Amino acid sequence: MGRSKQSKNSKTAAKWVYTFGDGAAEGRSELSELLGGKGANLAEMSNLGLPVPPGFTITTEVCTAYFANGKALPDELRPQMEKALELVGKVAGSKFGDEASPLLVSVRSGGRASMPGMMDTVLNLGLNDATCEGLAQRSGDARFAFDSYRRFIQMYGSVVLGLDHHQFEDVLDNYKNLNGYGADTELSAEDWREVVEDYKELVETELDEPFPQDIHAQLWGAVGAVFSSWNTARAVTYRLLHDIPDDWGTAVNIQAMVFGNMGETSATGVAFTRNPSNGEKILFGEFLVNAQGEDVVAGIRTPQSLSEQARIEMGDKAASLEALMPELFTQLTGVCDNLEARFRDMQDVEFTIQEGKLWMLQTRTGKRTTGAALKIATDMVGEGLIGQSEAVMRIEPREIDKLLHPTLDPDAQRHVITTGLPASPGAATGEIVFDADEAEALAAQGRKVILARSETSPEDIHGMHAAQGILTTRGGMTSHAAVVARGMGRPCVSGAGRARIDHEAQTLSVDGLVIAKGEIVTVDGTSGQVLKGEVALRQPELSGDFVTLMGWADKARRLGVRANAETPHDVTQARDFGAEGIGLCRTEHMFFEPERIVAVREMILATSEEGRRDALAKLLPMQRSDFAEIFEIMGERPVTIRLLDPPLHEFLPNEGEDVAEAAKALGVDEKALKQRISQLKEFNPMLGHRGCRLAISYPEITDMQARAIFEAACDVAGSSGRAVTPEIMVPLVQARSELDFIKARIDAVANAVAQERGVEIDYQVGTMIELPRACLRAGEIAEAAEFFSFGTNDLTQTAMGLSRDDSGPIMNDYIARGIMEIDPFSQLDEAGVGELIAIGVARGRKARKKLKIGVCGEHGGDPQSIDFFERAGLDYISCSPFRVPIARLAAAQAALRARDGKRTK
Amino acid sequence: MGRSKQSKNSKTAAKWVYTFGDGAAEGRSELSELLGGKGANLAEMSNLGLPVPPGFTITTEVCTAYFANGKALPDELRPQMEKALELVGKVAGSKFGDEASPLLVSVRSGGRASMPGMMDTVLNLGLNDATCEGLAQRSGDARFAFDSYRRFIQMYGSVVLGLDHHQFEDVLDNYKNLNGYGADTELSAEDWREVVEDYKELVETELDEPFPQDIHAQLWGAVGAVFSSWNTARAVTYRLLHDIPDDWGTAVNIQAMVFGNMGETSATGVAFTRNPSNGEKILFGEFLVNAQGEDVVAGIRTPQSLSEQARIEMGDKAASLEALMPELFTQLTGVCDNLEARFRDMQDVEFTIQEGKLWMLQTRTGKRTTGAALKIATDMVGEGLIGQSEAVMRIEPREIDKLLHPTLDPDAQRHVITTGLPASPGAATGEIVFDADEAEALAAQGRKVILARSETSPEDIHGMHAAQGILTTRGGMTSHAAVVARGMGRPCVSGAGRARIDHEAQTLSVDGLVIAKGEIVTVDGTSGQVLKGEVALRQPELSGDFVTLMGWADKARRLGVRANAETPHDVTQARDFGAEGIGLCRTEHMFFEPERIVAVREMILATSEEGRRDALAKLLPMQRSDFAEIFEIMGERPVTIRLLDPPLHEFLPNEGEDVAEAAKALGVDEKALKQRISQLKEFNPMLGHRGCRLAISYPEITDMQARAIFEAACDVAGSSGRAVTPEIMVPLVQARSELDFIKARIDAVANAVAQERGVEIDYQVGTMIELPRACLRAGEIAEAAEFFSFGTNDLTQTAMGLSRDDSGPIMNDYIARGIMEIDPFSQLDEAGVGELIAIGVARGRKARKKLKIGVCGEHGGDPQSIDFFERAGLDYISCSPFRVPIARLAAAQAALRARDGKRTK
Repeated sequence: MGRSKQSKNSKTAAKWVYTFGDGAAEGRSELSELLGGKGANLAEMSNLGLPVPPGFTITTEVCTAYFANGKALPDELRPQMEKALELVGKVAGSKFGDEASPLLVSVRSGGRASMPGMMDTVLNLGLNDATCEGLAQRSGDARFAFDSYRRFIQMYGSVVLGLDHHQFEDVLDNYKNLNGYGADTELSAEDWREVVEDYKELVETELDEPFPQDIHAQLWGAVGAVFSSWNTARAVTYRLLHDIPDDWGTAVNIQAMVFGNMGETSATGVAFTRNPSNGEKILFGEFLVNAQGEDVVAGIRTPQSLSEQARIEMGDKAASLEALMPELFTQLTGVCDNLEARFRDMQDVEFTIQEGKLWMLQTRTGKRTTGAALKIATDMVGEGLIGQSEAVMRIEPREIDKLLHPTLDPDAQRHVITTGLPASPGAATGEIVFDADEAEALAAQGRKVILARSETSPEDIHGMHAAQGILTTRGGMTSHAAVVARGMGRPCVSGAGRARIDHEAQTLSVDGLVIAKGEIVTVDGTSGQVLKGEVALRQPELSGDFVTLMGWADKARRLGVRANAETPHDVTQARDFGAEGIGLCRTEHMFFEPERIVAVREMILATSEEGRRDALAKLLPMQRSDFAEIFEIMGERPVTIRLLDPPLHEFLPNEGEDVAEAAKALGVDEKALKQRISQLKEFNPMLGHRGCRLAISYPEITDMQARAIFEAACDVAGSSGRAVTPEIMVPLVQARSELDFIKARIDAVANAVAQERGVEIDYQVGTMIELPRACLRAGEIAEAAEFFSFGTNDLTQTAMGLSRDDSGPIMNDYIARGIMEIDPFSQLDEAGVGELIAIGVARGRKARKKLKIGVCGEHGGDPQSIDFFERAGLDYISCSPFRVPIARLAAAQAALRARDGKRTK
Repeated sequence: MGRSKQSKNSKTAAKWVYTFGDGAAEGRSELSELLGGKGANLAEMSNLGLPVPPGFTITTEVCTAYFANGKALPDELRPQMEKALELVGKVAGSKFGDEASPLLVSVRSGGRASMPGMMDTVLNLGLNDATCEGLAQRSGDARFAFDSYRRFIQMYGSVVLGLDHHQFEDVLDNYKNLNGYGADTELSAEDWREVVEDYKELVETELDEPFPQDIHAQLWGAVGAVFSSWNTARAVTYRLLHDIPDDWGTAVNIQAMVFGNMGETSATGVAFTRNPSNGEKILFGEFLVNAQGEDVVAGIRTPQSLSEQARIEMGDKAASLEALMPELFTQLTGVCDNLEARFRDMQDVEFTIQEGKLWMLQTRTGKRTTGAALKIATDMVGEGLIGQSEAVMRIEPREIDKLLHPTLDPDAQRHVITTGLPASPGAATGEIVFDADEAEALAAQGRKVILARSETSPEDIHGMHAAQGILTTRGGMTSHAAVVARGMGRPCVSGAGRARIDHEAQTLSVDGLVIAKGEIVTVDGTSGQVLKGEVALRQPELSGDFVTLMGWADKARRLGVRANAETPHDVTQARDFGAEGIGLCRTEHMFFEPERIVAVREMILATSEEGRRDALAKLLPMQRSDFAEIFEIMGERPVTIRLLDPPLHEFLPNEGEDVAEAAKALGVDEKALKQRISQLKEFNPMLGHRGCRLAISYPEITDMQARAIFEAACDVAGSSGRAVTPEIMVPLVQARSELDFIKARIDAVANAVAQERGVEIDYQVGTMIELPRACLRAGEIAEAAEFFSFGTNDLTQTAMGLSRDDSGPIMNDYIARGIMEIDPFSQLDEAGVGELIAIGVARGRKARKKLKIGVCGEHGGDPQSIDFFERAGLDYISCSPFRVPIARLAAAQAALRARDGKRTK
């Protein structure tokens, strides 16, 4: 805004118009802020000597001035435009408004960021009754001239004059009906001349003024209208959704028209410099002979392939451009090579051939699939076009995820029942069941099931593991179901709020549609869709390009990448995905297996420390072998084991039948069990008797877990001959005294085991930093802790006072009302939670210089958050196994950005 | 420790012994760190020329050295002690170990802080076979001499030699049985001589060594033993409980013995310089003729009054000291005046009269009731002894509370059933009921009830109001029951964990004792006791001294004091207790009345904004009159009204019958109501859809509340002719965008009402700062907020990740294991929560210089926390009405400490 005001006030008129064409340009690609992406690239193509129809760009500053001036173009713009128009005419060999050889121009928007289809365009501008006749004469094609004129009136009428384009279509339909015509092609030059008259009559009737014949006024009006379309409701919404600032504004490009519809030596087409589906280095695209750009898009005629190779692969009958116009094909190929060399990336171009001459209308970086992106990036490194770092920066880390999971066949038919949140990527098909035990039983019979629950709890974990996919009707992106599913790599749709599960009837219903237990459904955790029946899946394949690129990423990154995992399956997966250690082994997940839960419940029901010790003794050998297996899989990689974290009531059955059953299994009185359940009930379990608070109330649990860890470490060290260095992590600490108490117990067990086994195990004791107070007291805590691991889920919950399991409806309203933009459980809140982390890091390192600091919350797998963790100076990030590749790449990009002093937006 | 090491290492021996007596002393009262309280005051009394038996004090540094040296007294001490002993003997006219005129001494501990009865004492030291004979000769009382000797052997045997004192008692009992004696008084001198022989034999048998006859060795041993008793288990526990550092150590006082049991001209007694019960300025205490100190304590003989006035008041028959020994009484009165003048406070003294001569054995500041403390402080200001500020500092603010509530008659019999937490002070008696509706119904009939619930919820508020007292079996000091009861001034015992309520049977049972509905119980919220039957109560009376002292306090304080209140009753009470405004008016409390709850539920069940607006329209007139009443009561004092805060599910019935009933009242389907209840259910309501989040989801609620506030303000301004300036407070804000959204709604309503009424109401919009993120983002938030009020309850919950309703069992274990010392919900956690507040204050004031900042959490009534709020620079504190006087006094003390640069411990 400041810049435009200055321009307005300064006496020396600002440069508001940049010309291009005929192998030269006032602009260049780096000026995209000023000229927009399209204008900057047209200038660049001109500079490269490529055949670009001449034209000029009105800068984005004029857009700002336009709105600042109450939607009026500044007068100073007029002489600059006139001068530029003159130059364009000279290059084009015609003249704007010349009745003999009229220059026609297109008026298009072009902002810094692409907003496809959001803004207005006017083509064929420069036509009026007089120049139309001239065009007919000069082109020798009156039909073309009047068709162009009527198209212009229609476009100008709707974009600039504010009429409805349906009104024009009605006039045309009427004319065709009256004359018995079907397709537009049946209309002759004379017919179009009459339609033009009808169109002009329509305008005059509607506006009480004749259609403007002053082509300079037309142009002035069109430029204003295109600027004005920057602020249409749909454009504003689009920018809001795509995070594009309102004050960027758009540029306007005015360019000599070229026509692909001037006979059999004319054509129009689009091309990618490489195949955007698989990245192959081959000119890829389509064209139509004797057609205009909109015909390619409209899909009335089937476009033809560019290359012979593509034609053969596609099984097309129509000739390729290569066969039809070999010289022009070679020229186009050369242009594309030229563009790739200049822009150092795959380009998406538009071209027109007018009477045997090639014109380039647009070039921009081409969109591509993730697989293609990988191949193009690695190929370009091989070709010397880009360096390895640049290749690493080219891949969107989140996209990597798609390569790791089955996906729905894009060609398969879909019957979408409802949509929830895309909580864990990938797709899966199976029989719907509503109970974790049943899921496990059916899976054991080799059947594929989808587990549907209102919400999941730790008791459902075996069922989630047995299922192909998971569906919940409640909970957000970081609900229990979502977190666990991502950890397991299971597809999951969470919070499908329109669906209702009736547990008695064993049905899922959505708006009247009822799905009974056993019916086949498909969940797509990538899109959030829930589909009826089976949908064909595509299995993931990891290419050599993936491995190559990830290798470069690993070289570039500074942050270590670990995984949150505890089952042998997940730990193996994590290691295979490149995890350099386990950053979070949640021991409670090991407690839910049927043979263990009884002992866990015995422990909870015991009324004395002795009783608890007896029950814990039963768990010891199982825990020990859990840990031994993890140590074996991870080899010398570090393993961080978190002591028991959840409140004890999570291990007890819920109300109802389960209690009777559980009481029977435990051999206790149902009433006693119920009483203990009610005693342990908490108002806010998240802020309750959990984490290190359990270890302080029941230190014998810590004793057992520490013993299992140290004995397993001895076992594996003995059998493998390798040192095993466990890292024991104490959760939910907020004061040093808590850690001191628990560390003393751990140290005592370590000494005891060392004595018994005659083996000294090297180990570390550290803590999760997941409460605001812990961040503030990090200095003291670091005196007792050998490492910190930020638990950003709980830290976000407490810093913001927002329960992630309850945040769904709140965040919906917040995002709808524009109060927050991003779910803080998906992407770290840098301004609040981030400051707490920064405080924790600074105070922790001040107290203990070499303090190892990581993060093991869900944010450890989010690229944007990883960028913050890089800047915050953490040592490592830890995330779900399936997010490890994302994290490796995101960490590399963060390191490269830090190196280059750049920040993510 | 550092000091003692230095002493040990330095060649010039440290001064370890300080003598006193004969009108002079090496010490003085300011040296209590070095000499202990007792030693310093003995020195001071000597300096004042008062009759103190000569003696000397071994410093606390020696104690430290003793433990540092492995429990051995340093050799360098010996010559200093010998020299001091010589001096003592000279003053006493006797000599230690002299067979003709032996000096006997007492060896007593005396630390910086009083630890009554915790440590050891040895009396009559200096006796052996030879000096005992000498004592008999010199005193002319062989019985006295041998009785003293046997007492010494018994005391020395148990304290120094480690024998069990029962062993000595057995020997004595045996002797008495053999000789047919009943009381000790029947034993003659010869008998005691034989007992001495038996005692010595016991020692020799047990220790294989004769009882030591070397009196210097005796003294050395006794000094070591007294130091050693600093670290007995009971002393260590006492220090832990009373927050006395272990490294303070104790001093040892060695003092010439004087005897009150040397005939009818001898006596011993204790005195308070003023009446410790009511503060009256009269010598108050008791004495016994021909007795030793321990006889006064033992209670075998009934002590006599000191003054005639007291004797008459007490109805004693035995003569007063005033009558019996008028000269000595006058001398004692003079000594006491002298002491008060010197120590500028009421003193508690011990004295002995030996053969007509008065000896002062101890003086210390006397304990007193709160009423007495008030009278003494105000009297002393009148007497010119102390200034007003000093008087203000003399009263423990917490004690004030006792003056405001009925208390149990201390003389009444008590049958304690169980004990819970002293959640809200005062005592009450009534029929026990288990249901809020029933409590209300019975109270309406004029019956007194005690409401007993497992825990209370906002639905119980009408019952709590109707009840005389409240009892819960779950929840801590800051549970719903506790907070609400304190707010109402109702006595409450919370978390009586041993008691069980059986709702079906309508009984309360504790360890087998069953109390049925309707039985009379008494709750004492001051002690936490629950008692069977009726116990006589004492009603509170506020004296003129109270008013005087509170006036001085108000002059001294800087912090404003407001109250958290919303009912007309509480608001009036708060104003009468001196509240300068309402700092927190919780509008939700107004929603539970039967006529209102239906409309509230209609609003919650409405499926459209229109439906909600219809229901809210019914609430508007009620809210308006609520606010009008408050504005009327408070006059020009500011009133801060908080917008609706709790999650909506708090307004819906719980499971079971209630639902059917509520559905009927609402005229809706029970199933629909149940579904809405289940939809609104939250895992962690504390972190859920509440506070400003409600206003963002349902801005029509804010609209209604704002309208009620502005219309009420117009009404009252119109009728009273006074300006009414409401302060509207938005709860649970963590980002400026939340406040912006809601403030815009409020401003719009303000404009609308101003237009409709033609009256402009001056108002402020501010926010509660109760989330860590809000403290961090306080700068931005202050740009939109005109005031801050720290909600320290929720800030503590989120900063520490600790749910106050669930913290009971956690805090029990934490305190038991020494991990935390104080419940952070009772006293603000300065190190964590305090830093967040400091950050919030600094950033808020940086953004808005004149930002008004208060606190309205429970801590606003806690003296220690108030000291922090003073230091943090807050503008005001707000607390329950019954805590307003406490807060006024605590704020005054905090201001005085700040003025003097002092801090609370």
